[in-house]
Amino acid sequence: MTRRVTLLTDFGSRDGYVGAMKGVIAAAAPDALLDDVSHEVARGDVLAGAYALARYWRLYPEGTVHLAVVDPGVGGARQALALEADGRFVVAPDNGLVSRALDGATAWRAVDLSRVRTPEAVATGRSSTFHGRDVFAPAAGALASGRPLEALGEPAPHPLRIPEPRPTRDAGAARGVVVAVDRFGNLLTNVPGGWLTDGAGPVEVAGEVVPLRSTYVEATPGGLLALVSSDGRLEIAVRDGSAAERLGAGAGAGVRVRLPE
Amino acid sequence: MTRRVTLLTDFGSRDGYVGAMKGVIAAAAPDALLDDVSHEVARGDVLAGAYALARYWRLYPEGTVHLAVVDPGVGGARQALALEADGRFVVAPDNGLVSRALDGATAWRAVDLSRVRTPEAVATGRSSTFHGRDVFAPAAGALASGRPLEALGEPAPHPLRIPEPRPTRDAGAARGVVVAVDRFGNLLTNVPGGWLTDGAGPVEVAGEVVPLRSTYVEATPGGLLALVSSDGRLEIAVRDGSAAERLGAGAGAGVRVRLPE
Amino acid sequence: MTRRVTLLTDFGSRDGYVGAMKGVIAAAAPDALLDDVSHEVARGDVLAGAYALARYWRLYPEGTVHLAVVDPGVGGARQALALEADGRFVVAPDNGLVSRALDGATAWRAVDLSRVRTPEAVATGRSSTFHGRDVFAPAAGALASGRPLEALGEPAPHPLRIPEPRPTRDAGAARGVVVAVDRFGNLLTNVPGGWLTDGAGPVEVAGEVVPLRSTYVEATPGGLLALVSSDGRLEIAVRDGSAAERLGAGAGAGVRVRLPE
Repeated sequence: MTRRVTLLTDFGSRDGYVGAMKGVIAAAAPDALLDDVSHEVARGDVLAGAYALARYWRLYPEGTVHLAVVDPGVGGARQALALEADGRFVVAPDNGLVSRALDGATAWRAVDLSRVRTPEAVATGRSSTFHGRDVFAPAAGALASGRPLEALGEPAPHPLRIPEPRPTRDAGAARGVVVAVDRFGNLLTNVPGGWLTDGAGPVEVAGEVVPLRSTYVEATPGGLLALVSSDGRLEIAVRDGSAAERLGAGAGAGVRVRLPE
Repeated sequence: MTRRVTLLTDFGSRDGYVGAMKGVIAAAAPDALLDDVSHEVARGDVLAGAYALARYWRLYPEGTVHLAVVDPGVGGARQALALEADGRFVVAPDNGLVSRALDGATAWRAVDLSRVRTPEAVATGRSSTFHGRDVFAPAAGALASGRPLEALGEPAPHPLRIPEPRPTRDAGAARGVVVAVDRFGNLLTNVPGGWLTDGAGPVEVAGEVVPLRSTYVEATPGGLLALVSSDGRLEIAVRDGSAAERLGAGAGAGVRVRLPE
Repeated sequence: MTRRVTLLTDFGSRDGYVGAMKGVIAAAAPDALLDDVSHEVARGDVLAGAYALARYWRLYPEGTVHLAVVDPGVGGARQALALEADGRFVVAPDNGLVSRALDGATAWRAVDLSRVRTPEAVATGRSSTFHGRDVFAPAAGALASGRPLEALGEPAPHPLRIPEPRPTRDAGAARGVVVAVDRFGNLLTNVPGGWLTDGAGPVEVAGEVVPLRSTYVEATPGGLLALVSSDGRLEIAVRDGSAAERLGAGAGAGVRVRLPE
């Protein structure tokens, strides 16, 4: 069985740490296809990683193993997880990194990675600083080689799920917050695109009133606009520029959208 | 049939947008080998992408699918393309990104991606902001799974080709311009290496007179030199440094090479 | 036979130079799995590349081909190498880049790549500036397609090995130096973790006295600590920060660890 393994980390690539993880996976599953998603998540930014993971995990076919390591608490008390959701696998620290993926899952089951901490692994140099190589990659390799999830550890019924703030709406307006900023400087909010029916808008954010459009090119270059993002939610953008810089706004900033009565 | 798909974008990797594209391709072509070329093309720099694409597309074996998305006009009037050239496929927006690849092709045929805009794709959340995931990746996945080019859309006989400025020469000199700057700060020109016969040089650029050499190590560290680049054209470089910074020059800067009479 | 090829360079990705290397490998070995390690090694930093390579080459399964190109002397007198060590292959310039990998090998044999410089390669545009595409990638592709090492060139019994400074110890203290700095700003030293028995510490470095811990989370956020790194050696770190910045120290800085009598 050939399985595909994706990798998302905040390690950068240049020191060979990611290479070490890939080597461990390839040793366990020699035919596995390894797809980099990114090694440039902002250092320790678990929520940024959670939003990134949510964008791709379910687009991959069933059987794919998604390895995600943004792990500022490595070596501390947090557990390590593997889970199966809607036929895909996710291997990650239990620090909230799977929060947004699980929001989009219809069914899942998780195990801790206690059984991956084998005496062999310890004897061969298990570190307390690099679980990416010593815990998560072996687990991903085991799943990619066809080992069942249950073989990796005991059931972990309550992985940490960091809740997302909920948007609200009344007759006249929808209110939400910026939940993530992408590398283009687009402000991604929690307001569902489905709320933005005909006649909705404009959007108020950071003291500016921003028109609601359906695509970037409807704004003039350098112009502010709001639109439904590729995630299906309200996004504030600057055409060919950065809304985060232009507005001096980031995660947590409030937004208000006028709704038709 | 296992096919290889390469990816070139200006998306960066950290937000998971590239992961989404890969997931869509993998779902359509589960055995496809996915090779990243880059996700770090300068944002919206179609010509930089065009020169990058030209450096690798034809070195890959026949049957390879090259996906390239540098697309500042996403959601606007530009078409989306798939083409077959010399046995390789290229999937890209019709904004000039294929210009330099087609310069090097002996034969090609193109289709627009109108048939990729299926009702299903729309129903499942086709955005007007992320054609990489919603138009280009499905097309690349279809080709990688063996679907014929014609199945993706109608013939597109006139893809946008941004012409390259032509160099000139007379008895005493060749003249050209810098057409691209690579990340080392090397200035890449349109002057063919074949013109630089024995006795040619020196090169005048940005008010400096630069000796013509055959390899970087013939210059002293930090020294300016001109040579025939790996693209087979005149290049201005600084050994272990950046000619772009040293000369304050970039795309469009004129160069003049003395030729032997 | 399907082989896996890893790539480590200082080329960056955006210009398509790495894409060209991959295309050459794929043309020679169409089923080869290509794993990026990094293209972001600091420009021309052979030793940084050597430490990175040492972190992953032996974790990959036997038969893997590791391509590594950090090559400030391209076009000069240095040789090009392919070697087999402990069942894995490494293809690299003979400039010391394999030094740390060979430190960890139990047996190896090397050849120069003289036979890769075929007339065909020259006729098809072999440059003297891009051996990554024109020498190293063809060699990696040949090995990935199953050609024997000996087919690539003559024995090269003495590849350049840059020695690592040796740490010393006496009854009261161990002394060593920082040999590398990773992208997190961690200072990696040559002091073996095995020397740091119970009661060892603290560590003196750059005028600071740093406590010896076993994992990052034992320090307060922003606090200095020393620990045994994932390479099994003494490392100086700042939790959630950069020890290199905090201490103004880098490769070559001395460290001293108090040892129990």
